[in-house]
Amino acid sequence: MIGVDWGTTSFRAFRIARDGTIRDRRASQRGIMNVPDGRFGDTLREEIGPWLAAGEAHVLLSGMIGSRQGWKEAPYVPCPAGAAELAASLTDIGFDWAQVKLVPGVSGHDDSGIAEVMRGEETQVMGVPLLLRDGGIACLPGTHSKWARVRDGRIVSFTTHMTGEVFAALRGHTILGRMMRDGPAEGAPFDAGIARSAEPDGLLHHLFGVRAQTLFGRLTDTDAPAYLSGILIGHEVRAALASATAGAVIQVIGSPELTALYAKAIAACGGFAERHDGEAAARGLWQIAEHAAWA
Amino acid sequence: MIGVDWGTTSFRAFRIARDGTIRDRRASQRGIMNVPDGRFGDTLREEIGPWLAAGEAHVLLSGMIGSRQGWKEAPYVPCPAGAAELAASLTDIGFDWAQVKLVPGVSGHDDSGIAEVMRGEETQVMGVPLLLRDGGIACLPGTHSKWARVRDGRIVSFTTHMTGEVFAALRGHTILGRMMRDGPAEGAPFDAGIARSAEPDGLLHHLFGVRAQTLFGRLTDTDAPAYLSGILIGHEVRAALASATAGAVIQVIGSPELTALYAKAIAACGGFAERHDGEAAARGLWQIAEHAAWA
Repeated sequence: MIGVDWGTTSFRAFRIARDGTIRDRRASQRGIMNVPDGRFGDTLREEIGPWLAAGEAHVLLSGMIGSRQGWKEAPYVPCPAGAAELAASLTDIGFDWAQVKLVPGVSGHDDSGIAEVMRGEETQVMGVPLLLRDGGIACLPGTHSKWARVRDGRIVSFTTHMTGEVFAALRGHTILGRMMRDGPAEGAPFDAGIARSAEPDGLLHHLFGVRAQTLFGRLTDTDAPAYLSGILIGHEVRAALASATAGAVIQVIGSPELTALYAKAIAACGGFAERHDGEAAARGLWQIAEHAAWA
Repeated sequence: MIGVDWGTTSFRAFRIARDGTIRDRRASQRGIMNVPDGRFGDTLREEIGPWLAAGEAHVLLSGMIGSRQGWKEAPYVPCPAGAAELAASLTDIGFDWAQVKLVPGVSGHDDSGIAEVMRGEETQVMGVPLLLRDGGIACLPGTHSKWARVRDGRIVSFTTHMTGEVFAALRGHTILGRMMRDGPAEGAPFDAGIARSAEPDGLLHHLFGVRAQTLFGRLTDTDAPAYLSGILIGHEVRAALASATAGAVIQVIGSPELTALYAKAIAACGGFAERHDGEAAARGLWQIAEHAAWA
């Protein structure tokens, strides 16, 4: 089978053998925002044509490709949702040269009853065997970070934090960004930002401190982005850990750069973290296809 | 004398009698960002020319006009700072057709030792007699909200919250703004946002809830701005009240629209608020001039 993690800004495809082994992989910047005029079929064929020619006929897609802005809207499956529930609700694209299906998103609500949605992360969670076997908490950092509780192989609830998008908006469109130049993401300024997130007076005050620290020469323009990032990630992690069982191990899933920052933040905030790379998506797609007894 | 509160986006001038009575006032949009080519002298003369012609010769300016981006940089005075300290550190503009002086800004640090600065708010605080007499806490909402502790007529410490600028960046440059249209600032959605700020999982999670609530039709596009504003102001107020003495009355100083929102938020968060309008700046300028025995 072919599994594709097709997000807003990136496209990652995996050719997967019957036993779940990844035989081949490719990645490009052709996320749904970078596909002109809704030409998703053509794009997919260009990306995975050689694998189709080699005999693959089943393609399973997850991520924003199944959103209203994507190829076709795949309805949300409510929590609790595991591989079986996801597999039972695949959406057929109805295509001529291959069987192409979409993994649904997952809907739920937070502890206060506010609605929550995810699309793509559910598939990555299904790709971490440890979570499926023992349950626990998954953290999927990004533009909209997700923290999901898993029990008996199913996502039972989750919360979203707008951390990545808030960072971009602050850096691009406030006085903070005017004093910043690119610098290393990790290191002492990131650690200082995480420590800062534990101090009194709240996030909106800590943000202004980035300006004040720069103004008085206590923070350089290249250190400021990591300090801001540490403040935001620190606030996210502290809030999320406060809702978690004490001593819980957080399974952090994503790119090595991002999971390194989050693992560091989780440890600094008194939690325990294990890291998993983005190929969790491939394993999750295969799991779901297995449950569908389809590919 | 003539007192001018000259900020980033607005210009407000007051003609003040010897006994402190405001005899005349005018306001325009000619904040320092809207004055081309540093033509501050010409702008000032155009705005207050008739008062000068009528015999006024002393002009005291406060606000961002004394910043590096303004007419001339007026150095910061460290906390504790009252009318006497401010009056002792006026900066002379050196102008031909009138004596024009700048009120200094105030510098300090928060409880964690992080640097803080204000410019303009110190003058407004000096214009609230109750604060000068009894001490207490001033809240000056805005782009960068200030919360100042006053004792024995002097500002002893203060913190800044980036609330207004964060609201603008989120509305203008994130997915939240794409689902918003102008609506009433007060009302049930604002109250709901304040209530939301007390719930678990933190500000970065509550922000994403604005999108989720809109997506599921539980929040209209015209109600969403007030809900977002309630979330942000609620977080600011809760964090600031946590650092205040229990039962303290907060003196909220600013435009009637903004002080109404903050008074409501403070009451909803268990505090007590009194409101003061922006003419506090005029009274503060007069107080400082009196101490300088100058105008």
